[in-house]
Amino acid sequence: MAGSSFGTIFKITTWGESHGKALGVVVDGCPAGLPLCEEDIQKYLNRRKPGQSNITTPRKEADEVEILSGIFEGKTTGTPISLMVRNTSQISKDYSDIASYYRPGHADYTFDEKYGFRDYRGGGRSSGRETIGRVAAGAIACKILEQMGIHVCAYTRSIGNIEIDYDKFDSSLITATKTAMPDADADKEAVAFLEDSIKKCDSVGGVMECVVTGMPAGIGDPVFEKLDANLAKAIMSIGAVKAVEIGDGCAAAKALGSSNNDFFCMTEGQIGKKTNHAGGILGGMSDGSPIIIRASVKPTPSIFQTQDTVNKSGEEIEIQIKGRHDPIIVPRAVVVMECMTAITLLDALMINMSAKMDSLLEFYK
Amino acid sequence: MAGSSFGTIFKITTWGESHGKALGVVVDGCPAGLPLCEEDIQKYLNRRKPGQSNITTPRKEADEVEILSGIFEGKTTGTPISLMVRNTSQISKDYSDIASYYRPGHADYTFDEKYGFRDYRGGGRSSGRETIGRVAAGAIACKILEQMGIHVCAYTRSIGNIEIDYDKFDSSLITATKTAMPDADADKEAVAFLEDSIKKCDSVGGVMECVVTGMPAGIGDPVFEKLDANLAKAIMSIGAVKAVEIGDGCAAAKALGSSNNDFFCMTEGQIGKKTNHAGGILGGMSDGSPIIIRASVKPTPSIFQTQDTVNKSGEEIEIQIKGRHDPIIVPRAVVVMECMTAITLLDALMINMSAKMDSLLEFYK
Amino acid sequence: MAGSSFGTIFKITTWGESHGKALGVVVDGCPAGLPLCEEDIQKYLNRRKPGQSNITTPRKEADEVEILSGIFEGKTTGTPISLMVRNTSQISKDYSDIASYYRPGHADYTFDEKYGFRDYRGGGRSSGRETIGRVAAGAIACKILEQMGIHVCAYTRSIGNIEIDYDKFDSSLITATKTAMPDADADKEAVAFLEDSIKKCDSVGGVMECVVTGMPAGIGDPVFEKLDANLAKAIMSIGAVKAVEIGDGCAAAKALGSSNNDFFCMTEGQIGKKTNHAGGILGGMSDGSPIIIRASVKPTPSIFQTQDTVNKSGEEIEIQIKGRHDPIIVPRAVVVMECMTAITLLDALMINMSAKMDSLLEFYK
Amino acid sequence: MAGSSFGTIFKITTWGESHGKALGVVVDGCPAGLPLCEEDIQKYLNRRKPGQSNITTPRKEADEVEILSGIFEGKTTGTPISLMVRNTSQISKDYSDIASYYRPGHADYTFDEKYGFRDYRGGGRSSGRETIGRVAAGAIACKILEQMGIHVCAYTRSIGNIEIDYDKFDSSLITATKTAMPDADADKEAVAFLEDSIKKCDSVGGVMECVVTGMPAGIGDPVFEKLDANLAKAIMSIGAVKAVEIGDGCAAAKALGSSNNDFFCMTEGQIGKKTNHAGGILGGMSDGSPIIIRASVKPTPSIFQTQDTVNKSGEEIEIQIKGRHDPIIVPRAVVVMECMTAITLLDALMINMSAKMDSLLEFYK
Repeated sequence: MAGSSFGTIFKITTWGESHGKALGVVVDGCPAGLPLCEEDIQKYLNRRKPGQSNITTPRKEADEVEILSGIFEGKTTGTPISLMVRNTSQISKDYSDIASYYRPGHADYTFDEKYGFRDYRGGGRSSGRETIGRVAAGAIACKILEQMGIHVCAYTRSIGNIEIDYDKFDSSLITATKTAMPDADADKEAVAFLEDSIKKCDSVGGVMECVVTGMPAGIGDPVFEKLDANLAKAIMSIGAVKAVEIGDGCAAAKALGSSNNDFFCMTEGQIGKKTNHAGGILGGMSDGSPIIIRASVKPTPSIFQTQDTVNKSGEEIEIQIKGRHDPIIVPRAVVVMECMTAITLLDALMINMSAKMDSLLEFYK
Repeated sequence: MAGSSFGTIFKITTWGESHGKALGVVVDGCPAGLPLCEEDIQKYLNRRKPGQSNITTPRKEADEVEILSGIFEGKTTGTPISLMVRNTSQISKDYSDIASYYRPGHADYTFDEKYGFRDYRGGGRSSGRETIGRVAAGAIACKILEQMGIHVCAYTRSIGNIEIDYDKFDSSLITATKTAMPDADADKEAVAFLEDSIKKCDSVGGVMECVVTGMPAGIGDPVFEKLDANLAKAIMSIGAVKAVEIGDGCAAAKALGSSNNDFFCMTEGQIGKKTNHAGGILGGMSDGSPIIIRASVKPTPSIFQTQDTVNKSGEEIEIQIKGRHDPIIVPRAVVVMECMTAITLLDALMINMSAKMDSLLEFYK
Repeated sequence: MAGSSFGTIFKITTWGESHGKALGVVVDGCPAGLPLCEEDIQKYLNRRKPGQSNITTPRKEADEVEILSGIFEGKTTGTPISLMVRNTSQISKDYSDIASYYRPGHADYTFDEKYGFRDYRGGGRSSGRETIGRVAAGAIACKILEQMGIHVCAYTRSIGNIEIDYDKFDSSLITATKTAMPDADADKEAVAFLEDSIKKCDSVGGVMECVVTGMPAGIGDPVFEKLDANLAKAIMSIGAVKAVEIGDGCAAAKALGSSNNDFFCMTEGQIGKKTNHAGGILGGMSDGSPIIIRASVKPTPSIFQTQDTVNKSGEEIEIQIKGRHDPIIVPRAVVVMECMTAITLLDALMINMSAKMDSLLEFYK
Repeated sequence: MAGSSFGTIFKITTWGESHGKALGVVVDGCPAGLPLCEEDIQKYLNRRKPGQSNITTPRKEADEVEILSGIFEGKTTGTPISLMVRNTSQISKDYSDIASYYRPGHADYTFDEKYGFRDYRGGGRSSGRETIGRVAAGAIACKILEQMGIHVCAYTRSIGNIEIDYDKFDSSLITATKTAMPDADADKEAVAFLEDSIKKCDSVGGVMECVVTGMPAGIGDPVFEKLDANLAKAIMSIGAVKAVEIGDGCAAAKALGSSNNDFFCMTEGQIGKKTNHAGGILGGMSDGSPIIIRASVKPTPSIFQTQDTVNKSGEEIEIQIKGRHDPIIVPRAVVVMECMTAITLLDALMINMSAKMDSLLEFYK
C-alpha cells in the first residue's frame, strides 16, 4: 500500500514524482453542482510554486493545472475530478552520484529499504512536488468550505527564533510577504536571517499555524476519528513536519486545570467560550470556537555544506549536495497546510450528516 | 460514523462507556498461532487501572478481562478476538446536575451538538474508561511485536515543570513509581507537586514519551500513510493529548539544517545514524533507529474549584464538580500510548509485506 | 485481515464462533436518537433460531441478546452498540474425528490452509451461528429503514424444484411457514420433499428472494460502489450462497434489448417504470422501483451418508458425519438476507447525503 | 462518495467520462520491481477497443495509454502508477435531445436523481468507456499474477441461447473470434444471430465466464471479505451485469447435498477434489481447484427501435436513439471481467500474507 489516498467521503488520491512526466490528483466524492474552473485551482498552486523569491528554490515551474474529468458545463458532476500538472523543468543532469549514496535527512535510505531501489531523481515521490496534488485537491475543498461560511487560513508563525507579533497581524500580508508571515516586521527580520543562512550554506526551520473560523460545533467523531486526530495525521503527513499542536499544544502540559479549562459563556445568545486554550476542539469534536493548529517544520535537509554519510556499498563517505533547494520549507508549505486542513474538515462535515436520526429522517422525508 | 475502529489489517473496534454494562474491543486480523491468555491482557489493563495510589482517582474497578472468542487451545485462530471488561463500580448517584450543564474542558457540549443529547453519566463514551479497549487490544499487539524483537516502551517524561533526568533513567521504575516516571528523584518531586495540587483543588498536565527499539527500516508508506502520520493520529486520538512530536519535534523548528540532519554511518556492518534528531522516521518510513514519540497532555478538566459555565437553557451559571477524578491523566495514560503505538506499528509491518515483487514471489513460491 | 467488518458509515463488526463462549456484533455509526431495546433485536434473532421445526437442526439455543453499550434512556446515543449472545448448547462431545479430516463442502480444508490450524468444534467461525451478529445488527438497520418508509422483505422462493406461485403470495406466511415460503401450497409440498430428503440422509438447496419497497431513487454510487455491487457482496458473503441476481438476473442474458428495457412512464405525477426487469437499479443507483435480489443457496454440506475425503495425513478415507444439522439452509437464512440487504441500503443512504452541493449547503446553513 | 476506488492494498482509482478529455486510473500499492511498459497495458486495452468488427460499435478510438508516473528504469517503484488514455473520437454532435429525456435501461434518470444533473454526452461516467481504467489497472494485476503462476482467463460462454460446447474449447480463439467465444462453431452461429439482431434494431445479452488456475488454497477471508463476496462485488460493478455465479451457481439451488459436495482426494501427493461444483471456493477461501465465475449480461440498452419514455418535464414521449452502439456488450466486456477478477485476487493474496504468526515471524526474522 503506497498510501496515496486520503479521506473517506471526500477522498483524494495523489500521484507523481519530481522528475516524472507529470503529477496529479483524483478528487472523488466532490458534491455535484460546484462551479469550478482551472483558475480556482491555479491560484492555490501559484502560492506553492517555486522560484518566486530569493528565499525559495530557483527551479522554475509553470505548474499549470489541467482539469481532465468531472466538470460539465462549468460545474462538478459528482464524479471524480482528475487534475494534472506536467513537469517542465526537470534538468536531465547526471544523477549517478545521488543514486549511489544516502543523503542525510532525506528518504533515500528508507525508500531503498522498503522497495529495494528508488527513483533518485530529485527525491522521486518524496519530493516536495508531491504536494501539488494535495494543493490542487485542497483548492476545491477550500472553495466548498467558503460557500459554507468556513474560512481556513494558514501562515508562517515563526522562522528560527523570529516569531510574529499578533498585535501586528495583517492577513493580507500572508500572500504578499516572501515568508508568508502576516507581520511585516517579522518578515523583514526573517528574510535577513534567511539570506544569512543561505550565505552559510545552511537551512532553517519554522512553525506554520492554521486558523479555521466558522466551523459549526459537533463535527468530528469520538474515539479514533477525532477531528484533532485526523488533523494531526493530515498535517504530520506533510513532509518535514515533526510536531503538530492543537490550541495551546505543548504548553498545555505545563498548565494547571484551573487556567487551562475554557469557561463556557453566552455571547449574543450563542454558547461560546471565554478563552480558547482547547483550540476549538473538545473530546475530538469542534466546539464552535476557532480551530487552531500548529506544525513545527524541520530545516530543509538539502544543505550545501560537506556532510558525512554512507553509500550503497556500505562505505562511509563525504558528500556535497548540489542542486536547487529552498533554504526553508515553511513559506511554500503554508498553503499545503491550509489545503490538508480543508480536506480533513470537509470530509468530517460530510461524514457527520447522518449523526442524528432527526437529520436522517428530515433529509429523506 | 462514530469512528470506533482503528487499523487496516490489524483492526480494532472498541465499544462501551463509563457507566454502561461493560466495555470492550474486537481485535480482527490478528495472525493465527499466537499463544494468548487472559493474563497476557490483564497485566496491561492493570497498569491503567484506577485506584492504585493517592494521585489517581479513588474509583475502584477490578477491570477483569474476559476473552469471548478467537482463541482455541490457547492460541489465536486468526478470527476476531472479542475482549470484554464488565463495569462494577458505577455509583448510581444523582446525575441530574451534570445532565443540565456543560463542564469546562469536557466533551459535554460537543456531544450534545453532534448527537442532540448524551449519556452524561461519568462522561459516557468520552470517559477515560474508553481506553480499556485500546489497552486490551494493544496488549496483543505488544506481545506480537515482542516476538518480532520489537520493544515499545512509554513513560512519563514530565509533570508540570518537573522533567526526568535521562542520566537517572531506570526503565524498571516505570511500573514501580506512582507517576510512571523512570527517575526516582523526579517521581518524588512530582508526587509532592501533585499532592499540593490536590490540596488546591487543581489539576496538572504532563508529557508522555514512547521509545521503540528493534523496528526494521523501511516500514510505513510515503505520502498519506506515513508512519509518523499514523502515529500522530493514534496518539492524538487519546483523550486530553494536545500535541504530538516525533524525534526533536517542536525543537526542529528552531534548528539549523547542519545540526538537525542525522549523518549516516556504519556500525558493526550495519547502516545507522550518528544522531537521531529525526526520531527514527525519514520520509514517513522507519530508518532503523529508535522511534521516539512525545505527547503533551492537558491537565484533567475535572477540578473541584468553582467554575463558570452555561446550562442547557443558555443561562450562565457557577458550578462545582464532584466525583472521583485523577489530578493528572499522564501516569495512567502511559500504557495507552504504548498500546496505540504498538497497534500502529504492527499494522504498518503487516501492510508492508507486499511492498516488493521479490517478497511477494518468494512468499507464494 | 479476518474481514469481520462491513459498511462505511453504518459499520458492523461481528465476532464469535460456534462453540466459543458467545457471539456478537458491534454496530458503529448508528444515528443517535433511535428508540431501541433488546426486544427489537430479539424478534429478528428468533427468526433464525434453531430448533423451531422438524426441518431444522434440533440444536436448541435460546439465542438471547444482551445490549452492552450505546443505549441511554432507551435511545441510541450515536456511539457503538455492542450486542452479545451467549452460547448455551454446545455439546462437549468428542471432536477428535472432525479435527483429523476435511468434510466435503465445508471450510475445514481452507481454514487449515490459511491459518495452519482451525477451531474444528461445530465449524468454528464458519458455522452458520456466525450470522447471529449479522441479524442482530440488521435488526437495527431494518428499524431505521422502517422509520424512513423503506421496507425490506425476504422469503423463500424455491426449494429444490418447488417454486412459489406469486398469485398465492401472502407475506404473512413468511414467518408462519416452516419453509419461510409466502405460499401455503408450495410450503406443504416443500416440507414433504424435505422430510423425504431427511429420510434419505440427504440435503437440498433453494432460492431466497428479497424485495425492497420505498427506496428513494438515486442511492448508490457509479462505478465500484454500485448499489447492486455492494448488495452482491453482502449477499454472497452469507455462507452457502453461490449466486446473486438482480431483477431478471440470469434471464437477462437470454433477453433482447427491446423486451429487457423498462420504459419510463408517469404514475400519479411521479416518474416510474412500466416494467421492472432491472430490479430497481440502473447504473448502480436505485431507480425508485422495488429492488429485487435473489440468492441461490447450495444444499447443506453436512449429510449423513458415507462420503469420501482425505485426512490431515493425506490418506483417502470414508467418513460419516454425525451431529445436528439442518437439511436445508434457506428457511433460517432468509432473515440473514433481509438483514444484510438492510445494512447495505442504510449505509448507501447515509453516504449519499453529501452528493449535491445544494444538500450540503442546506444541511449546514 | 463517487465510489471510484477498489481494493485495499492493491488499490485502483479510476476517473473519466465518455466525452471528457481523457480517462484513466491510478494504481496504488503495486509492488516495486515489476518490469512494466506501455505495451504491457496496451495489449489489454486493445482487447476492449471499439470498432474492431461489424458486431461492435463503429466508434473508432485509438485508446493509447500513457504511463505518467510510478515507473523508473522500466520497473515499478512501489509508488502510484498513473495511466491515461486521451479521448479522440468524441463527436461534437447535438446532445440536446438526450439531455432532455431519460433513455430506458440507462442511468440517465438515476444520475439526475442523485446529482441533480448529469453529463449527458455519451453516458458520461456511466459509459462503457469507464472500464478503460479497470482494464489498464487489470493488465498490471494480470502480469503480477502470471509471474506467480496464476492464470486468469475470461471468455464468452453464451450469446442469447447459443452456448459454447466445452468439447470444442480452444482458448486461442478467445482473442481471435468476434464474439470472444472459445468455440468456432458457436461463434459462427452467434455472429449470424447478432447480425440478424442488428437488422431488427435490437440488442442481445449473454454470459461471460472466467476461470482461474494456479491459485493457492487458503486465500480470502471468512465472513465479509470472502473471496467470492469480493469477486461478486467486482464483477457486479461492471455495467450491465445482472447476475454473478460461483461454480455451479444457480444450479446448486436445485442440487442435493450428496451430488453437490465435492469429495476430497489425493492427486500426485496433493490434496484435491474429485469434482468442482464449488468453483474453487469453500467458506470464502480458495480451495486450490480452478476458480469459476460467471456473469450474466443484459442486452445493450441502446436500441434503435422507437421506445416510450418520459422527459425532464414529466411528459410521456416516444424516442428513437441514434449513435454508435454495440448490439451486444459481452465480447468487449470479457477482458473487463478478467481484469476485475485479477485485481480482486491479487489484493486478497497481498492481504493474506500476515494470516499466520509463523509467516510474519519468518518474513521479518
